[in-house]
Amino acid sequence: MAHKDIELVYQNTARVGDDELGAGKEKLRDYIDYLGKIYKSMDYETPESSINLSLDEKSKNVLFDKVKERRNKELKYVVVVGIGGSNLGTMALYRALRGRLDVFIHEDDPKMIFADTVSPPLLAQIVDFLNNQVKNPEEILVNMVSKSGQTTETVANFEVIYDVLKKRFGDSAKDRLMFTTAKGTKLWQLAEDKKIDVLEIPQKVSGRYSVLSPVGLFPLGLANFNIERFLEGASEVVQKCLNHDSYQNPALASAILTYSHYKQGIKIYNNFYFNPELKSLGKWYTQLMAESIGKEYDLNNQKVNTGITPIVSIGSTDLHPMAQLFFAGPRDKFTQFVYASQKDNSLVVPSELFLPELAPDISGKKIVDITNAIFEGVKIAFYKNGLPYSEIVMHEITEDTLGQYLQLKMIETMFLAKLLGVNAFDQPKVEDYKRETREILKKL
Amino acid sequence: MAHKDIELVYQNTARVGDDELGAGKEKLRDYIDYLGKIYKSMDYETPESSINLSLDEKSKNVLFDKVKERRNKELKYVVVVGIGGSNLGTMALYRALRGRLDVFIHEDDPKMIFADTVSPPLLAQIVDFLNNQVKNPEEILVNMVSKSGQTTETVANFEVIYDVLKKRFGDSAKDRLMFTTAKGTKLWQLAEDKKIDVLEIPQKVSGRYSVLSPVGLFPLGLANFNIERFLEGASEVVQKCLNHDSYQNPALASAILTYSHYKQGIKIYNNFYFNPELKSLGKWYTQLMAESIGKEYDLNNQKVNTGITPIVSIGSTDLHPMAQLFFAGPRDKFTQFVYASQKDNSLVVPSELFLPELAPDISGKKIVDITNAIFEGVKIAFYKNGLPYSEIVMHEITEDTLGQYLQLKMIETMFLAKLLGVNAFDQPKVEDYKRETREILKKL
Repeated sequence: MAHKDIELVYQNTARVGDDELGAGKEKLRDYIDYLGKIYKSMDYETPESSINLSLDEKSKNVLFDKVKERRNKELKYVVVVGIGGSNLGTMALYRALRGRLDVFIHEDDPKMIFADTVSPPLLAQIVDFLNNQVKNPEEILVNMVSKSGQTTETVANFEVIYDVLKKRFGDSAKDRLMFTTAKGTKLWQLAEDKKIDVLEIPQKVSGRYSVLSPVGLFPLGLANFNIERFLEGASEVVQKCLNHDSYQNPALASAILTYSHYKQGIKIYNNFYFNPELKSLGKWYTQLMAESIGKEYDLNNQKVNTGITPIVSIGSTDLHPMAQLFFAGPRDKFTQFVYASQKDNSLVVPSELFLPELAPDISGKKIVDITNAIFEGVKIAFYKNGLPYSEIVMHEITEDTLGQYLQLKMIETMFLAKLLGVNAFDQPKVEDYKRETREILKKL
Repeated sequence: MAHKDIELVYQNTARVGDDELGAGKEKLRDYIDYLGKIYKSMDYETPESSINLSLDEKSKNVLFDKVKERRNKELKYVVVVGIGGSNLGTMALYRALRGRLDVFIHEDDPKMIFADTVSPPLLAQIVDFLNNQVKNPEEILVNMVSKSGQTTETVANFEVIYDVLKKRFGDSAKDRLMFTTAKGTKLWQLAEDKKIDVLEIPQKVSGRYSVLSPVGLFPLGLANFNIERFLEGASEVVQKCLNHDSYQNPALASAILTYSHYKQGIKIYNNFYFNPELKSLGKWYTQLMAESIGKEYDLNNQKVNTGITPIVSIGSTDLHPMAQLFFAGPRDKFTQFVYASQKDNSLVVPSELFLPELAPDISGKKIVDITNAIFEGVKIAFYKNGLPYSEIVMHEITEDTLGQYLQLKMIETMFLAKLLGVNAFDQPKVEDYKRETREILKKL
């Protein structure tokens, strides 16, 4: 399959002038140079070093070996126990490539089951599933993912799930585990003590920038995805994003567009995916943007309450709910469309219709041409209504293009945070509810 | 099972004073009287008459008979072909009651498959599924739902799906169809001509207010849900919502809270569901709010660009992505938590932990108590950070409480539109992209 570069298109539609693009580029000059210095240094000493995950031969070899070792024909289910940065990227890639009817269709590939939040009925379903659907231990692998190793939801879910497996399969259940965590955590130590398989998340790589580490790639590799292609796509984008020319650097241009609109008071960012299977990609990006940009204080310790609220729209599904609001309501959104037209798909509406009176224009048309027509119609309506937007042209949905997209958005987010003068890598206010929760749990 | 009333709680936390509540109540006095006059008149002459769907014995009898007639032991799959108001409510109720691992667990109940948008890979999966998983025609029923009867996505999906069924099962495929549409549409006419089973959507009931009509209840009934209980829950709420006292009328109070914050510039409404299986309920409400409130002109034909952007958060999942933004970012959101604590669930974390060093506080605790602790921790953190919120206490997730919730939010939306001076029932700007799309399709 030939490599296809994803593209950013925004001329005339984003409503940001050349002068603003130039000023943004100037503002980011030193930072791009800084990223250039980090590029290809594999010591992971700064949070930005996540840009090297796709280039790190040593960690790739460890990962590929583990995937090879643990993959077997009997494996039917990969249970990912993790939340937020520990599962959103994995879930996004899995759903993008497998689609909605996965369980009915991909009979030969392992299915993924996600245990994220602590929810009694969800966990009861997982327990029921483990007790009744899994016939022998080789059918399942449980991957607990937690950078700190102590996330409440993850540990609680893991303990319940492991308890079921131990009761069913005895001590051999231990061999069906993989932990993914940072070195030096209690979880890492426990893995060594109990001789449980473990993979490393580099200490300086934040959860929301970790999808291309073993966090995402180990479970995806087990489920038969081509993880090398994710990394190839990503590595090409890194190189592009070191370019000082915003016309050659999509992460740079995209960050400046969002920043320009933010300065004009536009604080809602509309991720409009026109392929429904990309919906979970929106959840992944939601975390990346919300947590990286939402900051009480800026880098100079001034109180700023910076933040952009990401929303996720799905075409054409959400046009029925949301088009009225977009076209008629307040002008408070900047939109980025993401679309892969997938021209190869040959599904066609029958030329002899069963109910020809209803929509005569569609007879004999390719389904993809109808989707394209709706997408073009929407863009024209956005333009005529004066709603600003850019577009990521994805061409096709593959490991390669998805790797490119993830890497592009991660570097774009670093640029956007720098333009806004905030720290893209911390999340101090998340502690607010965790502290309260711990207090309550102690008293129970 | 005893009936439980869902409750609205907001004192001290919503940050809206008694004077504002009083003024809102006064503003809605005539409208509540108007709803009182419509109440129980089954002629569906005004858009508000959707409040009578749960009380309409005649239409209920038709519906229940059809469900009984079409339900059989062989039925395994109900395919709902519809978009927006024609499927979001159905999907929300299905997922709320069946959960994430539905396909692995509820072996005896028919599964639902939703064909909403026109998407080549999604439709390709459905075609693959129909060709390879469905063994005989009695296993499947295809319900095409479209009020206008001519929605492009729906008609295109239907034609492709029906083509597969006809090729596999010949003319008997016709008996596996049910159409749901308004009387007088071309689709209605075709159903009569071709002797295909059809159910009615009252002409004046807008799609986004139609979940308690055959639109939602026919497919849900076929999939073994207790549709009578949905209607019972809803009918009790209608009565409450005719009360002039905002302390007795949760729809009235909830509308006034949102309106008060809107007047202060808060234009993002955060639906925060603390049960992950309620996520699709958020999609349903997103349409209801976005399309009903997002208006270019008010009732006096003044250009206003009114609108509130609904976002959906899921607890505790989305705290990891979004808590940082909520607590640190701009003060631009009003939150409504929705939570069913489901105290009956007995799942417990083992008291002898496999990894006791990680989170010693959770050993032996009930899973539901951990969820409750997180929810309480979040509310305290919201309060301490000065973020306004209300809460819908749902107690449990059943057909009854879900029926109550849907009806409450629909009447609340009518109240909110009235307070804002806009038409809750039209969507003129949706035409903008549909017109452009038709032009493109014609030229293909």
